Amino acid sequence: MTRYIGTGEMADLLRREGAEPILRRLVAGLRSDFRRWPDFDLAPRLANHSAGGVIELMPIADARSYSFKFVNGHPGNTRLGKQTVVAFGVLADMATGYPLLVSEMTVLTALRTAATSALAASVLARPGSRSMALIGTGAQAEFQALAFKTVIGIDEIRLFDVDPAAVAKARANLDGCGLRLVCAGSVAEAVAGADIVTTATADKARATILTPDLVEPGQHLNAIGGDCPGKTELHADILRRTRTVVEYEPQTRIEGEIQQMPADYPVTELWRVLRGEASGRVAADDITLFDSVGFALEDFSALHCLRQIAGAGPDLDLIPDMSDPKDLFGSVFSRGAAFERAA
Amino acid sequence: MTRYIGTGEMADLLRREGAEPILRRLVAGLRSDFRRWPDFDLAPRLANHSAGGVIELMPIADARSYSFKFVNGHPGNTRLGKQTVVAFGVLADMATGYPLLVSEMTVLTALRTAATSALAASVLARPGSRSMALIGTGAQAEFQALAFKTVIGIDEIRLFDVDPAAVAKARANLDGCGLRLVCAGSVAEAVAGADIVTTATADKARATILTPDLVEPGQHLNAIGGDCPGKTELHADILRRTRTVVEYEPQTRIEGEIQQMPADYPVTELWRVLRGEASGRVAADDITLFDSVGFALEDFSALHCLRQIAGAGPDLDLIPDMSDPKDLFGSVFSRGAAFERAA
Repeated sequence: MTRYIGTGEMADLLRREGAEPILRRLVAGLRSDFRRWPDFDLAPRLANHSAGGVIELMPIADARSYSFKFVNGHPGNTRLGKQTVVAFGVLADMATGYPLLVSEMTVLTALRTAATSALAASVLARPGSRSMALIGTGAQAEFQALAFKTVIGIDEIRLFDVDPAAVAKARANLDGCGLRLVCAGSVAEAVAGADIVTTATADKARATILTPDLVEPGQHLNAIGGDCPGKTELHADILRRTRTVVEYEPQTRIEGEIQQMPADYPVTELWRVLRGEASGRVAADDITLFDSVGFALEDFSALHCLRQIAGAGPDLDLIPDMSDPKDLFGSVFSRGAAFERAA
Repeated sequence: MTRYIGTGEMADLLRREGAEPILRRLVAGLRSDFRRWPDFDLAPRLANHSAGGVIELMPIADARSYSFKFVNGHPGNTRLGKQTVVAFGVLADMATGYPLLVSEMTVLTALRTAATSALAASVLARPGSRSMALIGTGAQAEFQALAFKTVIGIDEIRLFDVDPAAVAKARANLDGCGLRLVCAGSVAEAVAGADIVTTATADKARATILTPDLVEPGQHLNAIGGDCPGKTELHADILRRTRTVVEYEPQTRIEGEIQQMPADYPVTELWRVLRGEASGRVAADDITLFDSVGFALEDFSALHCLRQIAGAGPDLDLIPDMSDPKDLFGSVFSRGAAFERAA
């Protein structure tokens, strides 16, 4: 049977385990999987576009496991009272090809994105970082705040969004979590003196959320909102000053902030920094950038982690129960009875 | 919510509706979808290989709907008492990107493969065809027999398989369906005088199930067993004599019988014959060949047909229920309660 985890069980599981413990487990799994990057069979994501949006499949496999995520992106959905992004994923066994787990991944993607951001910051941000500006307080915001608190030790979050209601929402959701929450009046106010700057805006265009004059030596930039062709958040002049780390270079060249830069713009893949094969931050006043677009390995890792945390539970009957593998027909129709209606 | 159809409901549904009525509906849907071929956004299938087999994703979309199938192929599974091929599929709405249906597709694939074979034969076999040789009586056999009975009017099936138990299984399953069943002692005996020859063997190598001396003028060959690189059923000299029709040329060049032929070997895509833009059979003594490997459009069509037949039923909670699309965190954690455990 194939284990099923829907949005209801996912919410129960998060409430039971707590967001921060799960984020810590996700970071541990991600670190371990990123460090064995060469074990993976990487495939490009497959996209089908329509006027209103895109549907993508993101597969990946190692010798033992296979996963894929189904994810859409439909900016107009909010006008219909629907979500822009909905995702679900599947984990399968490479030895048999059988599906092991079908899970919702809308919430899980937010968790794994935040965990990946914090993992990258653990090797890129200045040691002892305590304050983070959070520009864009939409669906990702609270997950980012909690991941940086629990993994990096951030104790102050400066919130800014062009939508005051979104700031109020994030502030209310984070109230009581142990973070000092500052509502900034501008991007500049949020960023000034922050150790880390996270941009998580949803602008569907070339936007300039962050300009070069705002960025300070030593800051770490965690840019997660520029994640598809034509969608960026940082002024190109910032990229000329940063040491830039990406997940999977061929994908980020198309989808990330660096789509603004020439093809020879230097980047380092995160797994190489995590393995100690490349340097992340070299000097205290380096400006580091994690140009994150989201990668299939993160979903693979998150699905494995979830499967372990969730344990036994509801199953789907996606695999026919057959005593004789050649007798698919007989597994459906008992002999003699198949044609009473059809004949 | 997303409608779910597992193997249990699929079997109930087939028993309730009858195999033949469902095959007829599938053929009607396939004909209509193949005839609007230019409406579809075709993508290559995405494969991840391991030592034991392959896992593939097969996506396709038109302006309104999207579908993909997950399907594995693990020849060693039978030794573990498991099936070689297991499949499930998803139908989604292109306007919102939301998943509409998750369904088992192991049985549905057998049905759509048989329906596609019969649809192709309806424009390729001689009018008035009555007898069919069925070489290879494994998991596909009964579905093929019933599709050709109900769509083409075949009344005699000559069964042959190197495994006598497989022949006995197919014969027992088809007993009472209204077909005259002949157990042939050899491929030659099965093929001699047959109007249609279906090859559905599972050899995982270049095999020569059918040799040129056996094939008679006017016969229609329905070759469904040669369906991946390195796996063929027909002697190359047969292909030099046939008018050959395929589903999607770029895929069949790699996976079909015609992988044995040079790149300029002439083929016609089925949709063009169904639209009347190309000819299938021209003369009564033409030898026609449908070199079938299975294509994403067939799954798309079958999932739509299934969704219509099945109506309302069990749902999966794959889409988070959120009043505020920016408040993913709040949809999981009620305010204030999120950190009792985590803090």
